Amino acid sequence: MAGEGSDQRALQYEQTLMYGRYTQELGVYAKEEAARLRESGQRRSVSERTRNLDLLEYDKGRCAKCRICTVRCQKFLISRVGEDWIFLILLGLLMALVSWVVDFCIAICLQAQKWMYGGLDSNVFLQYLAWVTYPVVLITFSAGFTQILAPQAVGSGIPEMKTILRGVVLKEYLTFKTFVAKVIGLTCALGSGMPLGKEGPFVHIASLCAALLSKFMSLFGGIYENESRNIEMLAAACAVGVGCCFAAPIGGVLFSIEVTSTFFAVRNYWRGFFAATFSAFIFRVLAVWNRDEETITALFKTRFRLDFPFDLQELPAFAVIGIASGFGGALFVYLNRLIVQFMRNQKAINRFLMKKRLLYPALVTLLVSTLTFPPGFGQFMAGKLTQKESLVTLFDNLTWAKQGIAEEFDYIRHSQAWQHPQVNVFVTLVIFIVMKFWMSALVTTIPVPCGAFMPVFVIGAAFGRLVGESMAAWFPDGINTDDTIYPIVPGGYAVVGAAALSGAVTHTVSTAVIVFELTGQISHILPVMIAVILANAVAQSLQPSLYDSIIRIKKLPYLPELGWGHHEKYNIRVEDIMVRDVRYITLNCSYRDLHNVLLTGNLKTLALVESAASMILLGSIERAQLQSLLSMQLGRRRRLEFIRERATAEKKRLSVVSTNSACEDNHQRTSQEVRFQISTEKSSFSPTHPVTQKPLKPALKRPSVVERPTDIPIGSQDHSSNSSLKNLFCVSPDAEVMEDDGDVEDDMTIREIAEWEEMQLDEQVNFNNCKIDPAPFQLVERTSLHKTHTIFSLLGLDHAYVTSIGRLIGVVSLKELRKAIEGSVTVKGVKVRPPLASFRDSGTSSSENEATELHKLWDHQKSTSLPGELTPSESEEKSQ
Amino acid sequence: MAGEGSDQRALQYEQTLMYGRYTQELGVYAKEEAARLRESGQRRSVSERTRNLDLLEYDKGRCAKCRICTVRCQKFLISRVGEDWIFLILLGLLMALVSWVVDFCIAICLQAQKWMYGGLDSNVFLQYLAWVTYPVVLITFSAGFTQILAPQAVGSGIPEMKTILRGVVLKEYLTFKTFVAKVIGLTCALGSGMPLGKEGPFVHIASLCAALLSKFMSLFGGIYENESRNIEMLAAACAVGVGCCFAAPIGGVLFSIEVTSTFFAVRNYWRGFFAATFSAFIFRVLAVWNRDEETITALFKTRFRLDFPFDLQELPAFAVIGIASGFGGALFVYLNRLIVQFMRNQKAINRFLMKKRLLYPALVTLLVSTLTFPPGFGQFMAGKLTQKESLVTLFDNLTWAKQGIAEEFDYIRHSQAWQHPQVNVFVTLVIFIVMKFWMSALVTTIPVPCGAFMPVFVIGAAFGRLVGESMAAWFPDGINTDDTIYPIVPGGYAVVGAAALSGAVTHTVSTAVIVFELTGQISHILPVMIAVILANAVAQSLQPSLYDSIIRIKKLPYLPELGWGHHEKYNIRVEDIMVRDVRYITLNCSYRDLHNVLLTGNLKTLALVESAASMILLGSIERAQLQSLLSMQLGRRRRLEFIRERATAEKKRLSVVSTNSACEDNHQRTSQEVRFQISTEKSSFSPTHPVTQKPLKPALKRPSVVERPTDIPIGSQDHSSNSSLKNLFCVSPDAEVMEDDGDVEDDMTIREIAEWEEMQLDEQVNFNNCKIDPAPFQLVERTSLHKTHTIFSLLGLDHAYVTSIGRLIGVVSLKELRKAIEGSVTVKGVKVRPPLASFRDSGTSSSENEATELHKLWDHQKSTSLPGELTPSESEEKSQ
Repeated sequence: MAGEGSDQRALQYEQTLMYGRYTQELGVYAKEEAARLRESGQRRSVSERTRNLDLLEYDKGRCAKCRICTVRCQKFLISRVGEDWIFLILLGLLMALVSWVVDFCIAICLQAQKWMYGGLDSNVFLQYLAWVTYPVVLITFSAGFTQILAPQAVGSGIPEMKTILRGVVLKEYLTFKTFVAKVIGLTCALGSGMPLGKEGPFVHIASLCAALLSKFMSLFGGIYENESRNIEMLAAACAVGVGCCFAAPIGGVLFSIEVTSTFFAVRNYWRGFFAATFSAFIFRVLAVWNRDEETITALFKTRFRLDFPFDLQELPAFAVIGIASGFGGALFVYLNRLIVQFMRNQKAINRFLMKKRLLYPALVTLLVSTLTFPPGFGQFMAGKLTQKESLVTLFDNLTWAKQGIAEEFDYIRHSQAWQHPQVNVFVTLVIFIVMKFWMSALVTTIPVPCGAFMPVFVIGAAFGRLVGESMAAWFPDGINTDDTIYPIVPGGYAVVGAAALSGAVTHTVSTAVIVFELTGQISHILPVMIAVILANAVAQSLQPSLYDSIIRIKKLPYLPELGWGHHEKYNIRVEDIMVRDVRYITLNCSYRDLHNVLLTGNLKTLALVESAASMILLGSIERAQLQSLLSMQLGRRRRLEFIRERATAEKKRLSVVSTNSACEDNHQRTSQEVRFQISTEKSSFSPTHPVTQKPLKPALKRPSVVERPTDIPIGSQDHSSNSSLKNLFCVSPDAEVMEDDGDVEDDMTIREIAEWEEMQLDEQVNFNNCKIDPAPFQLVERTSLHKTHTIFSLLGLDHAYVTSIGRLIGVVSLKELRKAIEGSVTVKGVKVRPPLASFRDSGTSSSENEATELHKLWDHQKSTSLPGELTPSESEEKSQ
Repeated sequence: MAGEGSDQRALQYEQTLMYGRYTQELGVYAKEEAARLRESGQRRSVSERTRNLDLLEYDKGRCAKCRICTVRCQKFLISRVGEDWIFLILLGLLMALVSWVVDFCIAICLQAQKWMYGGLDSNVFLQYLAWVTYPVVLITFSAGFTQILAPQAVGSGIPEMKTILRGVVLKEYLTFKTFVAKVIGLTCALGSGMPLGKEGPFVHIASLCAALLSKFMSLFGGIYENESRNIEMLAAACAVGVGCCFAAPIGGVLFSIEVTSTFFAVRNYWRGFFAATFSAFIFRVLAVWNRDEETITALFKTRFRLDFPFDLQELPAFAVIGIASGFGGALFVYLNRLIVQFMRNQKAINRFLMKKRLLYPALVTLLVSTLTFPPGFGQFMAGKLTQKESLVTLFDNLTWAKQGIAEEFDYIRHSQAWQHPQVNVFVTLVIFIVMKFWMSALVTTIPVPCGAFMPVFVIGAAFGRLVGESMAAWFPDGINTDDTIYPIVPGGYAVVGAAALSGAVTHTVSTAVIVFELTGQISHILPVMIAVILANAVAQSLQPSLYDSIIRIKKLPYLPELGWGHHEKYNIRVEDIMVRDVRYITLNCSYRDLHNVLLTGNLKTLALVESAASMILLGSIERAQLQSLLSMQLGRRRRLEFIRERATAEKKRLSVVSTNSACEDNHQRTSQEVRFQISTEKSSFSPTHPVTQKPLKPALKRPSVVERPTDIPIGSQDHSSNSSLKNLFCVSPDAEVMEDDGDVEDDMTIREIAEWEEMQLDEQVNFNNCKIDPAPFQLVERTSLHKTHTIFSLLGLDHAYVTSIGRLIGVVSLKELRKAIEGSVTVKGVKVRPPLASFRDSGTSSSENEATELHKLWDHQKSTSLPGELTPSESEEKSQ
């Protein structure tokens, strides 16, 4: 449903410009570079130390020992700074502070609203105005601020983190700007009292914190800057985010694993636990320090009885909560996506809202706050309670339906909000659930930093409370038939419902753990587990998780999961989904071939084979490497060298030049015709192929077109023709100009340059200085889809070559894999060949297009600079 | 420390014969086979269905609809049988029943001992006799029974499961025999009252259950027999094992992940949760059904106060518990290993105990039960309490040191056992901790099915209680300076101590979750988490986990983890540790080369390269494939064909035979000399190379040695020479005899056979019918150790080839990797080249030996049948 329509990509509300690129295959080189940098760093630090010691020798007289000691301590500290645990402690501390400050500000905002509303109780209209204006202003500010500072801060952040942890680099998502925008935007958004959550954004904020902290600490030189380490730290940061948001370290770790990872390295487990525990600890200590609490306890403490938490015969009711929550969760995800798609597809609305970007948030907020206005409709849905207050009351020990039973614990009495003089408490609960349901689904689509976990959690709790109250009304003296009367505890049902619904929406089981940590009681473990598992089973079979849904809406590059036990997927093999028309370069190809290959496609990496006949795969080369090879070959420096050589040669034999050049030129032409090697298996130059050969063509074809009578010596003209080439190859022209050795005069005419370039292009490529990935990942034709998926997920691959006994026969990229999985998920039962076979049958160009669409997305800027209307010149070249 | 001494491998107490082999690279073919089998199964089921429908058509008259309905229901059920969730429910149910029955039997055993002991209170000597004999008999029976039925059932089982989940097939570990031996042995061992646990064995039992259930259900044909599915199910089974043992589903899942996995697939998460929850649920429902409990509650329910569980100022005490537990846990692991190694290294004891295998268990039991005899020393260490009773009392709400404070809850009063009239409760606790510590370490080494988790848990609880009681004595009115007095709860300290010590011994964080689920209270979450993390930090820096220690003791094929932040490992690259002398075969090699390669090494797989000059890696071939190729070429069938052809040819030109044959023979000799191709890069036939060429040599060399005058027609002689060949190639001779088509008479003489074989060996190998793995895993020279480790762990690799632009330059196997990691763990700081460089410098033979030692272990039987004393004939061949 999500994912159709090309106009959707240009989603305006959530400007997720993806400067992403897969860096997995860069890993090896990145590490090499890092190692080199580090070694030089070590050498430097050693030399520094010796210098320091020299200094110490020098003024030995004055308290030398003291100095040595301080220097050593400094050294020790700096060397320790790189240790993981210091990083994790700092991260935990920072995040606890951020979480506490955000909570504090939100509480102040909410208090201010209440105070305004309470102070104006003489006039209902003024009251309404105050009640409505306050959130509208806050949300509008939040939306505007985020939009201006960092549009990446919009939304939950969990989908993006999932993508980043998958190995995709989404730039701009981990910058300081985004951090500021997210924190301030989130505070304002939550301060407005709308049904929004802070969990998702906190996962993002923690990751931002980790990324910034990592950068900061690398200033001390202690850290080994390493890609896999960064991923490990980000995974820990996600745990910290959840942990310090709910003071739930264990649940935080598990939730972050379930939500962001596909394969989890157990050796990173401790990092998450360590940081999340520390963070939760500090977060709660801050509350104690602020005199909010007497000691460290749970956030939403419950006080259910311990000796008989629930009767065995109540279990069916819990199971019902689980199943209903499953349907509810799926509905929520569907509703959320429906709203986003409706807003996108309505062109008129879209165009209007595009112009007035802040109107949509304001309108939504106005609607929601009008409906919750306590003297109005809000009185039937406990509208005056904040999210936190409603949760506390829902987890209450009392039975609302019949007030007869008094409990020993005393509470702040918010429960009156649920008691309406005219309306039954059941009706209030039902209205609350229904209204909050669509409100939450709607509000989470507005472009502010916000999560959906907490609203869903509250709705689930309300649903559980509803079932619990019904049970309590049905069995006033409990179900147990023995002597002792154990009345039913509706609060326990609320706990179960909260865990079940949030589990269903996020497709996680760890909400069970979060709920235990939030309430501080684990006595309902079995009901909670049963309900959460049932809810997951139902929801997972109906809809993707909320985060996966957002990933699809935002079209983030991500691999979907294989469904539960879809055994038919074992039937699909790589040969069914692979692209057979692989771009490759041969070991003995000429620069002209290279040039053509680079122009006819925009894959990030190209396969290197031994020869077109043997097709034995030798490795893969990055596009950038090839581009730099080509620009080196055609570069100014080499040309100057050529000029110098020619000059020296000319001095020697100044007499016999005249006739030779024409002959040479002729020879060159023929050689060009002979050596024209096409590097895709078939019809790579078919007219349907949207190949873009424009930018280089002028430089090559100009002689025949312009035919000016030579000698415009160096000047601007030459430079521009040169730079057009360079722009194509992404090498900064300034850098090369800098390198110029000025002793030779560039006196070549444009014609000469063109001839020289033609000559250069015919030379065989020298791959010596080129970084070749000698072991790109290979699959076999018969590898099953299941195994391919596992390998792609495990290694975070972007593409893999399919080989048959060393011979390259195809390539599979994420794109194909995703199509295959999604196709087979919808078309169940029989073999899923039809949607896949279309890959093969649709011919060269379209399949190539599909394969590279993903890459195009990332090479956005480059591809836009290459307009694609040059088929005539192409066919011309083909006819040569 | 573990791992030295070659005699250790022949460990007699724990006969862990490893029929293991790595099957990862077999995966593709296994799946193909499975798919084929499944397709045929489908075809069969389709034909069955049509037959059924035919039958229905036949007797349509009688209640046809009814029959159709039942048949459809049957079909539906059978088709559903393959679904994962049915499997998981059955597994959970089964394990809950097993767990409950085992618990029940253990309780009866312990009651019987108490009853005997109580009934004989007139005579202390008789009492002692009863107290001591009972456990000795039970333990001896358990040890003997396990030894006879299935020695694999000995011990915890978690190390073996870790190895199996790593991808190694340990046969005999998942059989029905082992199941029976483990369940009965465990019941007897725990019934004796020794400090043993049931957690580890239950992980093994659950895996056994899963494996057997999987086999059983595959009878219904519904399951797609698939390797990765089995691994998934085993992982879920481990969670069930822990879950149904402690009624701790969440803790069970987490503990099993931490203990058995390296990389965890999040998509399997739900399986563990589902099965463990169901199992825990049934386990507790059985208790309710048996009237042990009123409703479902925790196993060791605590009743600490909820409103003020602990003071912030008590946290240092909790941290002290954590750190001390860390040291204690490391000490426990060390002590345990020390005892095992002491028993092994003392040759005299070892030899004596080898003869009387049951003496060791009996002696240990006698010692331990004597010391715990309640009227004797046992009175100072609460000796009369069972493990469960001590745990309940240790988690007690009361403060033992000063009985003044009464709590509202009432308890079964076991606490008196800790109160000795003459001795302080602190002294009792200290004695209990010290005695139980060494007792547990000792008792867990006896060869019965037993775990160490529970004893360690109890010791930890006692230690926590000790600290708690001290705190309570120190601050009689609590630490809090406010109005309300909150006395210190030593039971909370006991909970923290239990989690910390068990976490330290097993190197897991999830013991925290287990402790919450066991006690039913989560109020102490932060102290527990802090203590567990500190304990882990200390213990992990000192010793491996108990399970890793056992893995090293038992020398199971396992890859150790990379330590915490050992950054120097980034400096080691694959080129430093790889074996450069790779065995390979070329695409155009002759059968003789194949034969030589097969004889000169015993790697499981061989690299296939294009040619010795280019060295381009094309794939890898299994040894067995090559052996069957060779045996096909030299087999009787081909020879008979040859005879038939020769016979027909001879009929035609009966006249001109005489001179040709000698000439042909001569030609053959020369060709042999020319085509002798050595297939290791250098000196594969150096004298130091322990190559075993014996078994084939006689068949080839016999003509020149024996020189008997021909014609001993078919008979036994020929058969024996033939079978010697076949034994080598592991093809059952009977099978080939069966295939004989009897129309041709095998009238070749031995000389002729030898000549024919020589001729056959010179032919070029035809790889057409050979299964080649076209994409063996490849690394690059510069791949870091860290990355290599990750890839090996992720993909469960056995070996990987190192290539440089397609050229094969080396191979890395688990062995090298393990050496590199272990070497670099001990030698810290600087580059760890020295221990690794020895690989390269020690020349061909030794490095080859080291590389294949692992494989030798698995090809045990084969390699023993090839004695290695034939260097003379080898040098003879070399001089040709």
